Amino acid sequence: MSENDRIYREALELHRLFRGKIEVGCRVPLETAHDLALAYTPGVAEPCRRIAEDRDQVWSLTNRGNTVAVVSDGSAVLGLGDIGPEAGLPVMEGKCNLFKRFASIDAYPLVLDERDVDAVVAVVAALAPSFGGINLEDIAAPRCFEIERRLQERLSIPVFHDDQHGTAVIVLAGLMNALRFVGKSLHSARIVVNGIGAAGTAIVRILAARGARNVVCCDRFGVLSPDDERLTLPQRELAAGTNPEGRAGSLGDALVGADVFVGVSRPGLVSADMVRAMADGAVLFAMANPTPEIFPAEARSAGAAVVATGRSDFPNQVNNCLGFPAIFRGALDAGAKRITEGMKLAAADALAALIDDEALGAERILPSALDDRVVPAVARAVADQARAEGVCR
Amino acid sequence: MSENDRIYREALELHRLFRGKIEVGCRVPLETAHDLALAYTPGVAEPCRRIAEDRDQVWSLTNRGNTVAVVSDGSAVLGLGDIGPEAGLPVMEGKCNLFKRFASIDAYPLVLDERDVDAVVAVVAALAPSFGGINLEDIAAPRCFEIERRLQERLSIPVFHDDQHGTAVIVLAGLMNALRFVGKSLHSARIVVNGIGAAGTAIVRILAARGARNVVCCDRFGVLSPDDERLTLPQRELAAGTNPEGRAGSLGDALVGADVFVGVSRPGLVSADMVRAMADGAVLFAMANPTPEIFPAEARSAGAAVVATGRSDFPNQVNNCLGFPAIFRGALDAGAKRITEGMKLAAADALAALIDDEALGAERILPSALDDRVVPAVARAVADQARAEGVCR
Repeated sequence: MSENDRIYREALELHRLFRGKIEVGCRVPLETAHDLALAYTPGVAEPCRRIAEDRDQVWSLTNRGNTVAVVSDGSAVLGLGDIGPEAGLPVMEGKCNLFKRFASIDAYPLVLDERDVDAVVAVVAALAPSFGGINLEDIAAPRCFEIERRLQERLSIPVFHDDQHGTAVIVLAGLMNALRFVGKSLHSARIVVNGIGAAGTAIVRILAARGARNVVCCDRFGVLSPDDERLTLPQRELAAGTNPEGRAGSLGDALVGADVFVGVSRPGLVSADMVRAMADGAVLFAMANPTPEIFPAEARSAGAAVVATGRSDFPNQVNNCLGFPAIFRGALDAGAKRITEGMKLAAADALAALIDDEALGAERILPSALDDRVVPAVARAVADQARAEGVCR
Repeated sequence: MSENDRIYREALELHRLFRGKIEVGCRVPLETAHDLALAYTPGVAEPCRRIAEDRDQVWSLTNRGNTVAVVSDGSAVLGLGDIGPEAGLPVMEGKCNLFKRFASIDAYPLVLDERDVDAVVAVVAALAPSFGGINLEDIAAPRCFEIERRLQERLSIPVFHDDQHGTAVIVLAGLMNALRFVGKSLHSARIVVNGIGAAGTAIVRILAARGARNVVCCDRFGVLSPDDERLTLPQRELAAGTNPEGRAGSLGDALVGADVFVGVSRPGLVSADMVRAMADGAVLFAMANPTPEIFPAEARSAGAAVVATGRSDFPNQVNNCLGFPAIFRGALDAGAKRITEGMKLAAADALAALIDDEALGAERILPSALDDRVVPAVARAVADQARAEGVCR
């Protein structure tokens, strides 16, 4: 039995035994009739009246300001694809565990029996008064982009598709540190991003926002072209805004001389020969799950200087626990009405800064998810940036 | 400062201090990287795959089967009326406290920024895969009837508007015991129900289902007539199916010679003279909140044999904690797909049976909400009835 098979078996046993992973707890005394009269009728009428008079009182008289909805339609769950809302529920419960474990945020898992973009937007918008933020999760591209954009326009609480932006923040932090290690700059590095779905799109965008100027986008058709009608509209827009040297051809062609490979694509797509064709000091983020585009040992043998994956059993794990808990913690603490590009960049900078020059190494470009410096540092950076940008209530 | 004012002040302080009353807790270990690998990626993929293969596995691999949504649009909150979703949130959080406190059920408060019936139905239906049951709360009549009916038709989990059915179950239990105390039968008692909104409608229906044959419905226009175009359609339907003696006139007229008054209406509507005009051994359920239709002392002085109210500071409190926690507990335990009329009657019978002949008295027709016999007895009766009716998954 392989290590992964063992983990799958243990995980199944855990889920059977506990029958789910979260619960609702009570934070007020509820023993006596007097306790009940304060928490419920008749006493509860008073906080209700106060909020009816001044809606902003909801933030100080209820748990709304510490509550996030983890919303999915189950259409792009982990590497499993479109398995539906019920089958996505264990992931969403797990996400709520992580929100609580890492950032003391109370998150509810909400899986939706609904796929239509208009309908999903309507459902989430209707739910907004209960929540301090919305974490969209495991929704397939390109639908996820429009759902997020429309909710962000409509609501005055943060709406954050973690598969996009959480991943992008951590990749940016890790890549900044990897380039620091190999002595290159993000500005001039030639970067190939392979797999232009939800995560890939957000990675390309945040790299550009932080100053990367030479990014080439690839997908299963090779280098993306703005004229390729097989692509989605968001992919074509991205193709038009990147690839300043006008490259074309396969992923292999794009990698010749490249400084960085970022893969959110499929297992085994990168060969040792492709790594050998990259520039000296090559950096690879091979994040296909559970099997990366190339295994770290093979990439290192072929000359790669730094290799990161999504896996906890290799060094340099791009673990989404490094992102969303702290980003939401900071946004909630500041009363942010949205999560801006600046807040995401501040998160990436703060995360990268946790690895100082002394700690930095080929197998040490990111802190561990269990490093308890992460959430305080990143949350503070996010909250400070939100306040500086004036996007708070 | 009156006792109520003191409770309001204390309740406001409690809500400020705790900043809401619920939280999300984790039921699995989350300390080590191995713990995280089981609760989240990569291990969580295995329960996901199992549910994708067999959707019913969601009940044994997630918390869905112990989870209830407390859903409100904030349109009819307590006695406060239409105060909106945010202002309704403290009540919904309190309701979640009670679900947990009394029945170990994990309930999430969901307040909706949405009033349109079609839209509310669409939102709640979309959310159904996350929940084992839906508790509708504080939604104004007549909209609440259609929302509940359409959701019941569409979903295969219990959908229960507590303001209607929870109240009705407890009133029926209390009334059966009150009539037992005064030596009358529900079958032949002449019963006047005043206030035909959500609760009043459900009370009239459950009384009929348990065999009451002489019920007269009153509202602010007096005895309801099926031809009165000022009434809503549900009110006119109810008027057509009740009042076998064809009475007309005011509430006072209806009460002449009546055995029972059930009020879910407005403070002070019943005078001592009206009580004097009732039959000997009169029973009054004066449940207007926070001030009843008539105070118990005044009603007793005017000859009433039994008086119940909604208040905890008088005897015979009709407290909704006696209903919904146990009813949902039983429904969830049995895997019930809906809450039938039979299950509600079983709940009322079990609740009434907790007061035996020895305990029964003019000031003791219902158990206290803190009586720890209530939930086990009522939940078992509800679950047994669900299984007997074959309405379980």
